[in-house]
Amino acid sequence: MIGRLNHVAIAVPDLDAAAAQYRGALGAQVGAPQDEPDHGVTVIFIELPNTKIELLHPLGDDSPINGFLQKNPAGGIHHICYEVEDILAARDHLQDTGARVLGDGTPKIGAHGKPVLFLHPKDFNGCLIELEQT
Amino acid sequence: MIGRLNHVAIAVPDLDAAAAQYRGALGAQVGAPQDEPDHGVTVIFIELPNTKIELLHPLGDDSPINGFLQKNPAGGIHHICYEVEDILAARDHLQDTGARVLGDGTPKIGAHGKPVLFLHPKDFNGCLIELEQT
Repeated sequence: MIGRLNHVAIAVPDLDAAAAQYRGALGAQVGAPQDEPDHGVTVIFIELPNTKIELLHPLGDDSPINGFLQKNPAGGIHHICYEVEDILAARDHLQDTGARVLGDGTPKIGAHGKPVLFLHPKDFNGCLIELEQT
Repeated sequence: MIGRLNHVAIAVPDLDAAAAQYRGALGAQVGAPQDEPDHGVTVIFIELPNTKIELLHPLGDDSPINGFLQKNPAGGIHHICYEVEDILAARDHLQDTGARVLGDGTPKIGAHGKPVLFLHPKDFNGCLIELEQT
């Protein structure tokens, strides 16, 4: 069912510093910051040859990653995203196995403009997993 | 400098349960457990089309991931691994930028039989980063 690893998302306390570090110290191809007001984050994409790293920084007081950065002030890996071909079929299959989908189970449109769902980290070895329909 | 994302490593409290979940609920291609006594872990590789997930479980009382699982009993993302062409050049460049390399800076032979180094998570947004020479 799951396909490619679409991205690894890293929440960072200082977006400019993290971008400069990935560009300079790690020598990666780092994009420009993009505000995603619908998702409460500013995102920078780092293009690796086979996948992407997403640097996430809170945008606004209600950002969904404010709590994460309060618990992890230095930052940390926030989630990983797997691609699926059919997100509704994936959701139904996962729920049949007893896994919890966050929210009401209705896919939302993610930062890439595609339908996404998140799975409960307590059901997946402490990892927040995003599924994105490709 | 950094190339492909070689893998994402997830520390799990129950290796059999995690493997069954990735095979069944997530429908992934899951390998057999491999004991790595030199690294104090048992590893299961999950092959995605573009990269790998490594499930890590402690092997022995001195496992380097015992502490992580004590802090995170449900499991969690332990590290991410970027490929580099020349690990000594990468180390020297990173140290020139002020980043700390764990241990004495001498690459060790990792679970894939290739030279690896780990970077200090406090210097990299709370993420433990492994570099592997390809």
